Amino acid sequence: MTRLTLEQKAALVVGNGYWTTASAPGIPPIVMGDGPHGLRTQRETADNLGIGASLPATCYPPAVGLGSSWNRSLTERVARAIADEAIEQGVDLVLGPGVNIKRSPLCGRNFEYFSEDPYVSGQLGAAWVRGAQSLGVGASVKHFAANNQETARMTVSAEVDDRTLREIYLPAFEHIVRTEKPATVMCSYNRVNGVAAAENYWLLTELLREEWGFDGLVLSDWGAVDNAVPALEAGLDLEMPGPQRDSRDAILAAVRSGELDESVLDRAVARLSSLVEHVHSRGHRGDHLSLAERQRLARDAAIESIVLLRNERGLLPLRPGTRVAVIGEFARTPRFQGAGSSQVNPTNVEAALPAMEQLADVTFSPGYYLDERDNTSLIEDAVRSARDADVAVLFIGLPPMEESEGFDRDHLDLPADQLALIAAVAAATANTVVVLSNGGVVTVEPWHDSVASIVEGWLLGQAGGPAVADVLFGVAAPSGRLAESIPFRLQDNPSYLNFPGENDVVRYGEGVFVGYRYYESAEVAVRYPFGFGLGYTDFEFSDLVATRSSASVRVTNTGDRAGSHVVQLYVAPAPSHVSRPRRELKGFEKVTLGPGESAVVDFVLDSRSFAYWDTLTGGWLVPGGQYSVEIGHNARDIALRADVRLPAPPPRRLSLDSRVSELIEHPVTGPVLSFAMRRAENANELGGNLFDMVATVPVRRLLRFPGVGEQMRQLPLLLSLANNPVIRAVASWFGKRRRP
Amino acid sequence: MTRLTLEQKAALVVGNGYWTTASAPGIPPIVMGDGPHGLRTQRETADNLGIGASLPATCYPPAVGLGSSWNRSLTERVARAIADEAIEQGVDLVLGPGVNIKRSPLCGRNFEYFSEDPYVSGQLGAAWVRGAQSLGVGASVKHFAANNQETARMTVSAEVDDRTLREIYLPAFEHIVRTEKPATVMCSYNRVNGVAAAENYWLLTELLREEWGFDGLVLSDWGAVDNAVPALEAGLDLEMPGPQRDSRDAILAAVRSGELDESVLDRAVARLSSLVEHVHSRGHRGDHLSLAERQRLARDAAIESIVLLRNERGLLPLRPGTRVAVIGEFARTPRFQGAGSSQVNPTNVEAALPAMEQLADVTFSPGYYLDERDNTSLIEDAVRSARDADVAVLFIGLPPMEESEGFDRDHLDLPADQLALIAAVAAATANTVVVLSNGGVVTVEPWHDSVASIVEGWLLGQAGGPAVADVLFGVAAPSGRLAESIPFRLQDNPSYLNFPGENDVVRYGEGVFVGYRYYESAEVAVRYPFGFGLGYTDFEFSDLVATRSSASVRVTNTGDRAGSHVVQLYVAPAPSHVSRPRRELKGFEKVTLGPGESAVVDFVLDSRSFAYWDTLTGGWLVPGGQYSVEIGHNARDIALRADVRLPAPPPRRLSLDSRVSELIEHPVTGPVLSFAMRRAENANELGGNLFDMVATVPVRRLLRFPGVGEQMRQLPLLLSLANNPVIRAVASWFGKRRRP
Repeated sequence: MTRLTLEQKAALVVGNGYWTTASAPGIPPIVMGDGPHGLRTQRETADNLGIGASLPATCYPPAVGLGSSWNRSLTERVARAIADEAIEQGVDLVLGPGVNIKRSPLCGRNFEYFSEDPYVSGQLGAAWVRGAQSLGVGASVKHFAANNQETARMTVSAEVDDRTLREIYLPAFEHIVRTEKPATVMCSYNRVNGVAAAENYWLLTELLREEWGFDGLVLSDWGAVDNAVPALEAGLDLEMPGPQRDSRDAILAAVRSGELDESVLDRAVARLSSLVEHVHSRGHRGDHLSLAERQRLARDAAIESIVLLRNERGLLPLRPGTRVAVIGEFARTPRFQGAGSSQVNPTNVEAALPAMEQLADVTFSPGYYLDERDNTSLIEDAVRSARDADVAVLFIGLPPMEESEGFDRDHLDLPADQLALIAAVAAATANTVVVLSNGGVVTVEPWHDSVASIVEGWLLGQAGGPAVADVLFGVAAPSGRLAESIPFRLQDNPSYLNFPGENDVVRYGEGVFVGYRYYESAEVAVRYPFGFGLGYTDFEFSDLVATRSSASVRVTNTGDRAGSHVVQLYVAPAPSHVSRPRRELKGFEKVTLGPGESAVVDFVLDSRSFAYWDTLTGGWLVPGGQYSVEIGHNARDIALRADVRLPAPPPRRLSLDSRVSELIEHPVTGPVLSFAMRRAENANELGGNLFDMVATVPVRRLLRFPGVGEQMRQLPLLLSLANNPVIRAVASWFGKRRRP
Repeated sequence: MTRLTLEQKAALVVGNGYWTTASAPGIPPIVMGDGPHGLRTQRETADNLGIGASLPATCYPPAVGLGSSWNRSLTERVARAIADEAIEQGVDLVLGPGVNIKRSPLCGRNFEYFSEDPYVSGQLGAAWVRGAQSLGVGASVKHFAANNQETARMTVSAEVDDRTLREIYLPAFEHIVRTEKPATVMCSYNRVNGVAAAENYWLLTELLREEWGFDGLVLSDWGAVDNAVPALEAGLDLEMPGPQRDSRDAILAAVRSGELDESVLDRAVARLSSLVEHVHSRGHRGDHLSLAERQRLARDAAIESIVLLRNERGLLPLRPGTRVAVIGEFARTPRFQGAGSSQVNPTNVEAALPAMEQLADVTFSPGYYLDERDNTSLIEDAVRSARDADVAVLFIGLPPMEESEGFDRDHLDLPADQLALIAAVAAATANTVVVLSNGGVVTVEPWHDSVASIVEGWLLGQAGGPAVADVLFGVAAPSGRLAESIPFRLQDNPSYLNFPGENDVVRYGEGVFVGYRYYESAEVAVRYPFGFGLGYTDFEFSDLVATRSSASVRVTNTGDRAGSHVVQLYVAPAPSHVSRPRRELKGFEKVTLGPGESAVVDFVLDSRSFAYWDTLTGGWLVPGGQYSVEIGHNARDIALRADVRLPAPPPRRLSLDSRVSELIEHPVTGPVLSFAMRRAENANELGGNLFDMVATVPVRRLLRFPGVGEQMRQLPLLLSLANNPVIRAVASWFGKRRRP
């Protein structure tokens, strides 16, 4: 470090190209590439917004698909394959995974995120980092933090209370940082409670480094830094893209004027230097997968990403010899990834239509135009072909221009021309299968009941076409599960009133009640719940055993085909004085079983499985009482429950700021105060229940009423007795004897 | 002022008794009494919590009833009658009206408040102040502000954003202060965005006095002051109850140490002195109403408070000669007011049963016990009497212990024993009428469809019994309208996730979408909408004419009986970039018409009728565009609409912080930027719609991308051209010519 000049150091922290860092003696540059579901590597040319042509690379299913796999090892394999390709292309750092929570189904970038649930996001994000970093390529966990919308993403302040941050928006980052040591974390564009993520000392230093122990590098999202000096001080190490000469100059000036301590700059340079050392020491340890191997992995990942939502009369899988009318342009021209920085230049896109042609007697009609020209005559063709076939398979979805990084949707509807197509085909045949392609959730209204089967195909990457064909014809069984709820209406979503906010402020008014946490707690009906997904066989659960530290359950394939199921463990909280979701996912395992086979699945639980974030103490708290460990097929369909009773933490110290109710519940003060209040109640002319009326009043305030102070002269003495643990224990013992 | 010693002044601002202020030479004490719906005056005795016996006084319908009258002049008459009684009892200041918004139906004190709507609350609150102060008695508008729950009311911080405060929680106070000059405002117990109302300089000084021009006295809710010196500095003038010797001593010490400027204390004393002068100068100007006149007024007010919710087959009014089975203890032992500080010691309580006995052939069975003993045998009696009668009139409601000042409910259900009674009686006769007594909203599920008629009787004051009888038998026609929505389920209420908060924080997560503003905007079905109420005749609207400053509509009684209707004017906003309620009440008039009669009702509108609170400028803003003035029977049933087009305010000044979308929409920068972006889009490999992707990005951030800065070198010049009004006007003119 001492070898470098101030100028050299300042240049190192502001980037040197769209994808590269600056170099200095002993510190070569590193190269980055976009890529949670495939690399986007560009040669540095006259490209301005990073939108020049990128090198061809394998496009795996985006996170909306991979998230639906609920498969950690698959996610790990995909990330490792991406890292393998990164090594081939000379990329040292891959900008992924994206683990933001899907707060609203409208977020334009939801296709890049795993789930509405922090546990799923954390588990799969960790698997991704594990996979990528197993080859020595660096990962970049993003976008840190509370970046849950695209509207005004560079300026909006996410107004989120501490408890909600801790329970919903931070745990995925926390889990990955604590368990996988990602090389980098990427700070987000937005502000968090008024402070830009890039300048947020609490976020980037107190929380990330001091509390979670992160020792890697923090880099900015592209163009996220407004003020380089405060950003450095907050804990940002690298501004991208570069070179940002004004930032460099500002840093130089600040150090020279003494405003910025040079050690802050040194710290950032040291972190960059460590990262460089780390990635350059990996050698060429790639797996050197062949193109065919990559395509196969992309197809396997796509198969597991597919969620079978509906399958009336067991229409799927299609029997051999079925005459199939394939309808919809997406069958021929697939929509397989989303728009924006994650967009991969794919090596080999395979559509569903040719794959299906290899498996059955197939006709094709496009049904609609991608450019939304009037499709009346195409619908007529489609209806004719549907009538002539045994089954109509409709490829339906969101046009590419309707969802993207950079903006949010404002509705959940499919295009009108496609809705008209569904209506016409469903009227012509009872055997309609709808295959959906969409990055964000779409409603399946009003046509849901008119079709026999619905296959949610999300965005499936470049081998999604054959994957869909495999599932439709039973070459593979569908095993995806919803990582986000599908509501009946946009208005049912808990963020509805507060998305995307206004005037650069978005209030997370629903608090911790995101996704199924809301639907289950408020008993709001959804079309398909979180965790839902059908297969081609059936599973049953039995023999649940649960303690505070573990649970196990037997799962049996009761059908006549092999298949996979996701065993989901939820915890339902004990009653407490804070409002908690009815249940929260705290474990899942995907198991594959032959017909009649069964297996025991084990789960590890810890105090976090039962805790909430307590704003009074600024820590995790597990209230005492009876919890329920639940094993479910999904968040709504709970099959088994086991009670787990946890002890209460010791009562809080009493003071004049304690509430009357706390004194009443306390073994020492309770009997005394109850006696006094019963006496007062006889004189009560206010008509109500005096106990309830004053329950939430701090004792100090009672003393403001003339006369009460007189009567409560002994209170300080009583409180100090109550805070004595020995006296409390004795009083508890007597109290229990009195109430047998 | 100069005549008083420091000690005398300090003593004046901390009260001298439960209901009296201290005195000093030239400043006699004043006497206060509780009382939004009737006086609660106590003699100062050994009473500690102010719960000693109070003097008998007339109990008028609490605000939940009076609010349902939608009748300004009636409200004014009731308040004047209370003031008349105050004069008799030597009370100078009556602690009312309560104009807090019913944010949640669970709030234990909702019976003391008028409405979920700020316009209704402001209009009726103003009428109340007008009435009381017309006799020279002072009013005290309370509880200022954002005091919308009882749970933890002395400590909770209401976390409310500025726009929501301005549009929902403050307008009633603002309207009353600006139009009626109330003698006093009472600050609330709670904190507002972290700062205790009693110590909130913004609330008590900047907003109340400087912005709204309040020149009266601010007193504390009883026991609301924790820190006397910061409270004085914030604008609180009088702490109650007194004497608070520690507050006095703290003030003395602070003045002596120089921490507190003595002029702050002088100001408070001067305001108290003005108030004393004002109330003592009124002489004895009471109306000296007789007991009979008061009882009649209480009855008239109760009649107008009753809301007829359901009346299948025109069962009501009951025909002469009908044999009526009166069922339910509340018919004999009425519940007519709520518990807490507002509880009046009534002069003459009249139950419904004797009043009904004078009008018809009546049997009575109690149906349930008020103390919730098992009522199985009472139900059997009730069913027998129902079978023997033509009509069963069931008096049902919330037991007094279930709702009160001081605590909130946690459900909306009627007691199980009463539900069992309804089920049994409704099964026995098709002619069941349910008369409800409840201070807060109750659900009418699951029995709603099983009864023919539902009369929402709220709490009706001491003459509520005969009022109900009058309405049941058609001596009077019901004319009340719901001032709050009746939802199907508690979970449907928008505050459900955030009520009553936890750990002393309550987040107003639903923002401005309170009550019908939510139900109408999110299209959530309710059992009965805001503004709903039936009568014994029908009304039609016609001939709506509306401008930006006025509206008029003809209302016709098309039935065959005289009756009253509330003409409700709502404004539906023009599209804007902020989220606005689908419609908001901006006018109402109650009209009484004979059969076949019609009348024209005129409304005055102003810019506030169309405005929202803009957080960017900190002021009211009326976006340009097409608004709709709507005349409705209630918030859901809109009968007539008239469009009003308002001009757009001038565009904001452009700067580097402006969004791309602002530049695109601007007549000067729009054409230039559009051209540049169309060129960039041809090179776009990100797959999406480039315009939408960057729409919300501030221009300054675009410049952080290498190369873009180069291309946009001329931007500062372009922005300064755009901000020139002449150039903008010319460009607008050309722009309009281009797009004919």
